[in-house]
Amino acid sequence: MHVETSTLLLHTLYLIAIVAEAMTAALAAGRRDMDWMGVCIIACVTALGGGSLRDVLLGHYPLTWVRHPEYLGMTAGAALLTALAAPLMRRLRRLFLLLDAVGLVAFTIIGCKVAQAMQLPVSIVLISGMITGCAGGVLRDVLCNDVPLLFRKELYASVSLVTGGLYLLLLEAGLTANAAVPLALVVGLAFRLLALRFNWQMPRFVYRDDWH
Amino acid sequence: MHVETSTLLLHTLYLIAIVAEAMTAALAAGRRDMDWMGVCIIACVTALGGGSLRDVLLGHYPLTWVRHPEYLGMTAGAALLTALAAPLMRRLRRLFLLLDAVGLVAFTIIGCKVAQAMQLPVSIVLISGMITGCAGGVLRDVLCNDVPLLFRKELYASVSLVTGGLYLLLLEAGLTANAAVPLALVVGLAFRLLALRFNWQMPRFVYRDDWH
Amino acid sequence: MHVETSTLLLHTLYLIAIVAEAMTAALAAGRRDMDWMGVCIIACVTALGGGSLRDVLLGHYPLTWVRHPEYLGMTAGAALLTALAAPLMRRLRRLFLLLDAVGLVAFTIIGCKVAQAMQLPVSIVLISGMITGCAGGVLRDVLCNDVPLLFRKELYASVSLVTGGLYLLLLEAGLTANAAVPLALVVGLAFRLLALRFNWQMPRFVYRDDWH
Repeated sequence: MHVETSTLLLHTLYLIAIVAEAMTAALAAGRRDMDWMGVCIIACVTALGGGSLRDVLLGHYPLTWVRHPEYLGMTAGAALLTALAAPLMRRLRRLFLLLDAVGLVAFTIIGCKVAQAMQLPVSIVLISGMITGCAGGVLRDVLCNDVPLLFRKELYASVSLVTGGLYLLLLEAGLTANAAVPLALVVGLAFRLLALRFNWQMPRFVYRDDWH
Repeated sequence: MHVETSTLLLHTLYLIAIVAEAMTAALAAGRRDMDWMGVCIIACVTALGGGSLRDVLLGHYPLTWVRHPEYLGMTAGAALLTALAAPLMRRLRRLFLLLDAVGLVAFTIIGCKVAQAMQLPVSIVLISGMITGCAGGVLRDVLCNDVPLLFRKELYASVSLVTGGLYLLLLEAGLTANAAVPLALVVGLAFRLLALRFNWQMPRFVYRDDWH
Repeated sequence: MHVETSTLLLHTLYLIAIVAEAMTAALAAGRRDMDWMGVCIIACVTALGGGSLRDVLLGHYPLTWVRHPEYLGMTAGAALLTALAAPLMRRLRRLFLLLDAVGLVAFTIIGCKVAQAMQLPVSIVLISGMITGCAGGVLRDVLCNDVPLLFRKELYASVSLVTGGLYLLLLEAGLTANAAVPLALVVGLAFRLLALRFNWQMPRFVYRDDWH
């Protein structure tokens, strides 16, 4: 019963997160003047691509959206609503950033749990969380022909790593999933929101071949 | 016997389609000044990439070209011939557009049939058709560093969706595959050619962050 | 025992190669001003992406880095050291080119051996070698938003094809793996270094739509 509580929490956050990711992806598609079909496809790839890449790399079949095709409908529907109500969206920028951060930490812990259930080593559990949390945005940027934001800005991947690491540490320390999941979610979310608020950045590596 | 007729038709159209896709991909590679090896690789990825992505996402192994390596030779050979005979190609632009449309609808129905054979739900059957029909061109555009055309122009993905949907509806209505396949092929092809002829477009979603 | 000698040689070259690929990938990430996390991710994708793509396409699970997570640590560590010691790197340009060539031929033969162990046909064995040798660099270029170098410059993919082909021919001629592996490695390496030294290039296919 206890396990079900944290699973239910994660599932709820997952549904919120795929809708939020679909909406921000639709805005990215709109910046590239894509048509409505392109908007829907970019939204599905962004919202469900991280989990799909994880499952393909780990050989974890069938993929989430193959088992739950309704998620494709949810993300495509959210994307179309976003395109229709675009004038409203700019005012919701802060809400999107919050929901995107919720998605990042929720996706991360879901990805960790998938790898844990496959009995994979700790480092792969962390990587599985990072792929689930971050790869959708990378796929969006590649399809929109941008250098992925992940590699250049903000502590996105680092938040995912910290969230996954804390979750595993708390389990290791003897906490139940029902305690470890919400704690890791809250700390990860706080870390992400602080990074956004204070514009925390990692050091960059700037290299020029004409360096002397 | 009856089933074999539509299977044979699809297989013939499939072979025509991978050759046509290889030829148009070679022209795209030529626009980027790629060398002959690059031309062959882009051709194979474009012609066989949609089916490969579908099989990887659905866990449907072995992939088509692993079972039929001769398809790799066909696509690479067609690409090299295109590079050698490039001056002729411009005159064949209409023929290429026709063959590309044939490929789109044939790939779509083949993708639907793969998912049907795996007993997947209807929505995944449609998605499987769309991935098979459209993803090769997306991979080509990503490798050539373009924003995928699919997301911006023409009714490509929509034609795939309509073709797959009609095919499933006709089967649902009690038609045999031997009747449903050619009907869906012809309607899908007509839809695509009309969209090209009259430059039908979907509404676009144009979003700028400086919108006020 | 004899087989183990060539396996040990390949394994040693593999470890050298993933470190070298990680270091050149880190420099590519530095040219795009990526942060340290981005540098690590690009390094892992470049060094391990070719083998991963091969395994996903062939359905060969689990992937190398899932079985050996220490490789992820090695590549990420090498990438960070490169970022820290960047001023030294420019002097090592020749060494990097040499190690990259070692990686290309070693990855190629490892990829051939994976497909051989799966009893796949000769053409797929060659393709498996080429994917293992070349795809990491393509993924790096796509993530850095460049047209992949592979398709435009140098005899990279051709060297991979020649190395794999020679390896298979030597086995066919009755040589043991212990003889065929080092011979193919040396010839492939020499071919690559000569191509670099004398700037050998394949003919390019240059196509413009306004050609008349």
